[in-house]
Amino acid sequence: MLHAWFDKLRLSPMKRRVYLLFMLCFFATAYALEPGKAVVESVSEHFLFFAPFRSAEFGTFERVCLLVVLGIAVAGLLYALMLVKQVKNADQGTPKMQEIAAAVREGANAYMAAQFRKIGPLIIIITLLLYFTTQGSVAAFRYGRAGAFLVGALFSWAVGFVGMRLATTGNLRVAAAAKHSYGEAMQLGYRTGTITGMLTDGLGLLGGTTIFLLYGAQAYEALLGFGFGGTLLALFMRVGGGIYTKAADVGADLVGKIEKDIPEDDPRNAATIADNVGDNVGDCAGMAADIFESYEVTIVAAMILGMATFGHKGVLFPLLVRGIGVLGSIISTYTVKAGPNDTSDTALKSVHRGFWIGSIISVVGFFVLGWFYLRFDDAYLAANKLITAGFPGGNPANLPIWANFGVVGLDLRPAITCLIGVFLAVALNKATSYYTHTSHAPVKGLAKACTTGHATNIIEGFAVGYESTVVTLVIIASAIFLSVLVYAGTPPMFIAYGVAMAGIGMLTLTGNTISMDVFGPVADNANGIGEMGYDKDEMEAEKPGSYKRARQILADLDALGNTTKAETKGIAIGSAVIAGVSLFSSFIAVIAVGSEDKLALMTDAQYNSIQSLLTVANPRVFIGLLLGGAVPFLFSSSLIRAVGRAAYFIVKECRVQFRDAEIWSGKKKPDYGRVVDICTHTAQKELIGPGLLAICAPVAVGLLLGPFALGGFLAGTIVVGQLLAVFMANAGGAWDNAKKMIEDGVYGGKGSEAHKAAVTGDTVGDPLKDTAGPAINPLIKVMNMVSLLLLGVIIKFSLYGGSHKLVGGIVALLCVGAIVWGVLQSKKETPGLTEE
Amino acid sequence: MLHAWFDKLRLSPMKRRVYLLFMLCFFATAYALEPGKAVVESVSEHFLFFAPFRSAEFGTFERVCLLVVLGIAVAGLLYALMLVKQVKNADQGTPKMQEIAAAVREGANAYMAAQFRKIGPLIIIITLLLYFTTQGSVAAFRYGRAGAFLVGALFSWAVGFVGMRLATTGNLRVAAAAKHSYGEAMQLGYRTGTITGMLTDGLGLLGGTTIFLLYGAQAYEALLGFGFGGTLLALFMRVGGGIYTKAADVGADLVGKIEKDIPEDDPRNAATIADNVGDNVGDCAGMAADIFESYEVTIVAAMILGMATFGHKGVLFPLLVRGIGVLGSIISTYTVKAGPNDTSDTALKSVHRGFWIGSIISVVGFFVLGWFYLRFDDAYLAANKLITAGFPGGNPANLPIWANFGVVGLDLRPAITCLIGVFLAVALNKATSYYTHTSHAPVKGLAKACTTGHATNIIEGFAVGYESTVVTLVIIASAIFLSVLVYAGTPPMFIAYGVAMAGIGMLTLTGNTISMDVFGPVADNANGIGEMGYDKDEMEAEKPGSYKRARQILADLDALGNTTKAETKGIAIGSAVIAGVSLFSSFIAVIAVGSEDKLALMTDAQYNSIQSLLTVANPRVFIGLLLGGAVPFLFSSSLIRAVGRAAYFIVKECRVQFRDAEIWSGKKKPDYGRVVDICTHTAQKELIGPGLLAICAPVAVGLLLGPFALGGFLAGTIVVGQLLAVFMANAGGAWDNAKKMIEDGVYGGKGSEAHKAAVTGDTVGDPLKDTAGPAINPLIKVMNMVSLLLLGVIIKFSLYGGSHKLVGGIVALLCVGAIVWGVLQSKKETPGLTEE
Repeated sequence: MLHAWFDKLRLSPMKRRVYLLFMLCFFATAYALEPGKAVVESVSEHFLFFAPFRSAEFGTFERVCLLVVLGIAVAGLLYALMLVKQVKNADQGTPKMQEIAAAVREGANAYMAAQFRKIGPLIIIITLLLYFTTQGSVAAFRYGRAGAFLVGALFSWAVGFVGMRLATTGNLRVAAAAKHSYGEAMQLGYRTGTITGMLTDGLGLLGGTTIFLLYGAQAYEALLGFGFGGTLLALFMRVGGGIYTKAADVGADLVGKIEKDIPEDDPRNAATIADNVGDNVGDCAGMAADIFESYEVTIVAAMILGMATFGHKGVLFPLLVRGIGVLGSIISTYTVKAGPNDTSDTALKSVHRGFWIGSIISVVGFFVLGWFYLRFDDAYLAANKLITAGFPGGNPANLPIWANFGVVGLDLRPAITCLIGVFLAVALNKATSYYTHTSHAPVKGLAKACTTGHATNIIEGFAVGYESTVVTLVIIASAIFLSVLVYAGTPPMFIAYGVAMAGIGMLTLTGNTISMDVFGPVADNANGIGEMGYDKDEMEAEKPGSYKRARQILADLDALGNTTKAETKGIAIGSAVIAGVSLFSSFIAVIAVGSEDKLALMTDAQYNSIQSLLTVANPRVFIGLLLGGAVPFLFSSSLIRAVGRAAYFIVKECRVQFRDAEIWSGKKKPDYGRVVDICTHTAQKELIGPGLLAICAPVAVGLLLGPFALGGFLAGTIVVGQLLAVFMANAGGAWDNAKKMIEDGVYGGKGSEAHKAAVTGDTVGDPLKDTAGPAINPLIKVMNMVSLLLLGVIIKFSLYGGSHKLVGGIVALLCVGAIVWGVLQSKKETPGLTEE
Repeated sequence: MLHAWFDKLRLSPMKRRVYLLFMLCFFATAYALEPGKAVVESVSEHFLFFAPFRSAEFGTFERVCLLVVLGIAVAGLLYALMLVKQVKNADQGTPKMQEIAAAVREGANAYMAAQFRKIGPLIIIITLLLYFTTQGSVAAFRYGRAGAFLVGALFSWAVGFVGMRLATTGNLRVAAAAKHSYGEAMQLGYRTGTITGMLTDGLGLLGGTTIFLLYGAQAYEALLGFGFGGTLLALFMRVGGGIYTKAADVGADLVGKIEKDIPEDDPRNAATIADNVGDNVGDCAGMAADIFESYEVTIVAAMILGMATFGHKGVLFPLLVRGIGVLGSIISTYTVKAGPNDTSDTALKSVHRGFWIGSIISVVGFFVLGWFYLRFDDAYLAANKLITAGFPGGNPANLPIWANFGVVGLDLRPAITCLIGVFLAVALNKATSYYTHTSHAPVKGLAKACTTGHATNIIEGFAVGYESTVVTLVIIASAIFLSVLVYAGTPPMFIAYGVAMAGIGMLTLTGNTISMDVFGPVADNANGIGEMGYDKDEMEAEKPGSYKRARQILADLDALGNTTKAETKGIAIGSAVIAGVSLFSSFIAVIAVGSEDKLALMTDAQYNSIQSLLTVANPRVFIGLLLGGAVPFLFSSSLIRAVGRAAYFIVKECRVQFRDAEIWSGKKKPDYGRVVDICTHTAQKELIGPGLLAICAPVAVGLLLGPFALGGFLAGTIVVGQLLAVFMANAGGAWDNAKKMIEDGVYGGKGSEAHKAAVTGDTVGDPLKDTAGPAINPLIKVMNMVSLLLLGVIIKFSLYGGSHKLVGGIVALLCVGAIVWGVLQSKKETPGLTEE
């Protein structure tokens, strides 16, 4: 693999330059870090592998719990395996259907392989870099962080890859099952989604637990690496997948529907297979990797903060809560069923019932667990220095009745904040659904706006999108505020722990969420396979009416999938803010002590004195805030342009193929592979600019303006990123459904002027809702992670307060250069654009 | 006037409720404040009117300077008066032209009068409220703040009103002059703009200087009132004018161009006059009031911070710099001329040359002034406690060579930061022009995107707008950063003074800026009058070819006006950020001492300890940041909807008039007044929601989450507001010019498919660039001002740390209720919308 990559490097001067720049940046940093080794004062010296089983700090109950959690993680993975077998053993339909499914699968595999080749070397470089830049002298930590990064990245990739593989396997089976029964097809589709969901749950929990088992109270280092690996991969999968899917979609529409006036899935259009591949790499792989990353990062943040506040009980509790969530997901996803002649309404009820069952299991679970586990006796308090600050008057006995249910020593606040998180997830789903579903006023208003033309539809979409982002933000802010209230009166780290636990609660039912989400593209693809692959005559000969019935089932499932998929969208973006806020506290903690290996030595006073320097009243911090706010806009601008450019190449290729008279007359199959190749190639190429921006921007800000400005920068990114992401996602979703509403017959239906205006809205929304909007979620977290990981280095080399300014200055300039180069690349006119 | 208003109140239960809510909110606050009177420890006790002339602190040089500045302010106003005479004495054209101009003028007057009636009572209520809520016991301050508020509001209104009046006078003269000579017409148009510019300069300087003369070192109180008055009025003028102009524009287009397929200025369309009125009330009155407000607020911020840092030299210097700027504007605007047969190119050069002459005069002026005035001897240092913190080692002798040019005791840093501000203004103009002018890549790209349809044009517009906002933000951040560097090593208040001085520098040439800006609508209207009012036969009979020549001149002037107007757009929004940042420091200073009358007693340690609490690491502050970021989105959403709703009413009215066969056949003049009335009425009505949001949001946040969260809220508003405002302004501007480019003949010209797509882009851009985008500028500042003014009250009544929580809670709930009510109003479907 590496060899092939080196070959490519030789051939492409552009790539060579980018990689060179990357390596220069990173190795300069790595080199510059050497003096860091001299630091001796560190807790790391006393490091023991498998501390939870060797240190007296951990009780038997805790050891058992840890093993149980590990068992649950494995059980989740086994459950996924079981479902894989169920899906694989299902009927695969006719050879014609299999052929189409195979083409889609091949395309998707080719994309994943190409992406692996592209990102692989970068992952190796970063792994090495993390190995070299880890501060402190204990070898175990060096291996730990670098290794965890690699594992995190691989897990994230695996979730995306397997999710996409299974989706391309499942779509065929769903199409085949639809010939027999609604219930069977629906269940297969949902379970295909559940596989990805349980993989996310299982791998996320397995990783976190294993790292804790290995590193105990010093898991911080490795956890960060783990989180970073997952997040970085998710960013690339989101960006690459997002560009792929929308480039193929827009390209296919432009050249087919608009230029040639042929229907959407016309087999003569060389871009149709790429379009279907796009659904899988974008909506399945990208989304799954993204949620996996949120799942990882929230547990990382909760464990780090738990360690710094409530000691190992604070770390173990989130792990245990996650375990309960996985159990809840296993049980509840298995209850989702539909009868042979059910409709989408009853099926949706079953999906919702599944979600509620899971929620109830989880909520009851974590309160019961809390009741037994969250007891703080004098011995525990004595062993953990900081912990007393977390109780009123330093004593758990002073907790109010709602926090300890009247039992002295009990502290149920972590369970309460988890509950807040569950409510947050529900509220976000409701808000998203209100603004993007056809049954509510906003989408109805958009559909009506279409009757007065393209412009009014777009304007009304702005108003709807702007408003929806405000509502979403108020919901998130309220959840944070409630968490703050629960921990009112305690130091900021404790409050941050509360916020992190809300994040844990919010993602408790990740298994169910992903099942619902992946079900969307699977059903969509199954419908496509039915459309292209069903043999009407044969089916009707076998059983009259069966063709129509099967097609109806697939159409119903497609609609159901759209609904379930839409409902889960709010969570992905919401989690970025919650995770961002919690990571942010870790960030301050690291500034406070200078580098992350000294974290366990931090005192409350240190934390307070440092956090106060992050004031927006400091103009540097304010400048950081401004710059941070600008990044999501720049990033979105690049992605939107990238989609346009990639789409153009597709249009060009399809035009060439249309000129072949045999293809145009339908005698010869077009070369689908060529368009798939173009998509794959350009989606990879367009990764570079946004990737550079995400990694280099925080480094440049930190080095040029200092670590406090970097704090402001992160805050700016979270605020603006959240607002922009939700605006784009919801405006896009609303435009999409307004179009569907009109296609369902209101205001003149298909072909009317209103429909044309609705199509414009939908097309505008496409890159916003499926490329730029969702990619902001991993962007926020990558920048947070990069900042956290490099903070020690940044403090040392910053032009503002650092001790090695020359190196810092050079690296900063390289980073700024890389960003500018990336932006210019993104602005560069496509070479062939002026050709025809 | 009050009587009429009470009558109206009786008739409209909705209005009654709103006013009741308003009054409840405010009087509850006022009542709650009474205990504040008990506070005794205050410097206010030693208050002397006319301190600069009675206190020994001020030297003769300073007294002379103050009088000179006052003289310059008056000179600016006299210059404006002289230009008024020139314009009024110019040829007024034929009766037909006069008739059209009179209709436009009448409509504009009606709007201004209606707005005055609407806002008047509110202004009176707030004046009373300010009178009652002023803390401290010196009567002079009570009258001072309330009086200054009233004066500020009246000045702001006057600038807008006179600017609009003059524009409606000037347009006719320009149209008449175009019959004779290009140069004459151009000069008249430009001078019409200059009148408004000099009025802004003169009144702004007069107000600031007078307040300083009266209150001396304790001018803070009154200055805040002055700034608030100007800002609040500007917000209403921007919002009302923005809704008016775009509702009329969109309504006229929808019913005329699209429904009936008649040309833009067809006299049968009842909305044409309203459309022309809109240009005046939106682009002239709104813009002028807005820039006046920026001009005021920057001087207020600089004077307050100057007082708190460098003593009275710190206060006087910005006033003197402003004086120099006014002189520079007087001289340079008078040099702008064009020959009888010039073209737009040479005329534009003359305008630019004027700007450069003004810049050079100003820059030289403030360095010379600084050389003589900014000298700090031991006696001065001894008299001003805080000042030594502003010099390295407490001694001006330690300043680096670039700051004192080698002269011990000299400190040219204020002049240097002014220079940064001048560069900032130039850079912002350039950036705006790059992204919105037809001669650069972005607009060309948009025009090309139109060839592939409506959607690609909109998508590309997103990319351009997003990118442009990033560039603008980086420019502003760089200017702030440079100002920070100039004052590096000094306490935050000194740095804030540097930023405020950059704001002073940026708006030095406000006279020229407004001249360029107002020239736009004047030329636009003159072109309209030419189109409707020129008598072709008569003119050709008099002199063959003269009609064509005059029309060509007007078209050229219109294009020139578009360019000059566009170039100045960046400044208005940039100033909001700079002023916001400087006000922000005043905000912290007030929190530090508890209420604003104790400001002069503040120590550096107090400031530092308080500013550190504004850390984004505090979850409350972070929540404030999030909520602050949401406000510009909510505000924009309301305004965009308001335009749509108002446009609908116009469409309805025009349809009714079209049904009259006599009007449709052109025999009868349509009732233009009815549409003007609708615009006037709805624009006023739609003010309520956004107005409530601007005033109530900071109060609610402050009371519910505490003063520090309010700080975060303001920071969030500035960051997000800036990004969103520039995005909307530039995307809209780029779409507008892409349409113009296509209309000029590229890609098929008028009537082509590309043109249709371009029109969609332009229409989408209209409410973004002329209503929502520019209104964010005063929004940011109103919220800053409200926060500053009510801070003392908020600290006292906040649920978080206040001592009168019940009252605070009730007021907060009332505020939240008012915001929610406003949002619901804005979302409410127009009653008649479903009718036809």
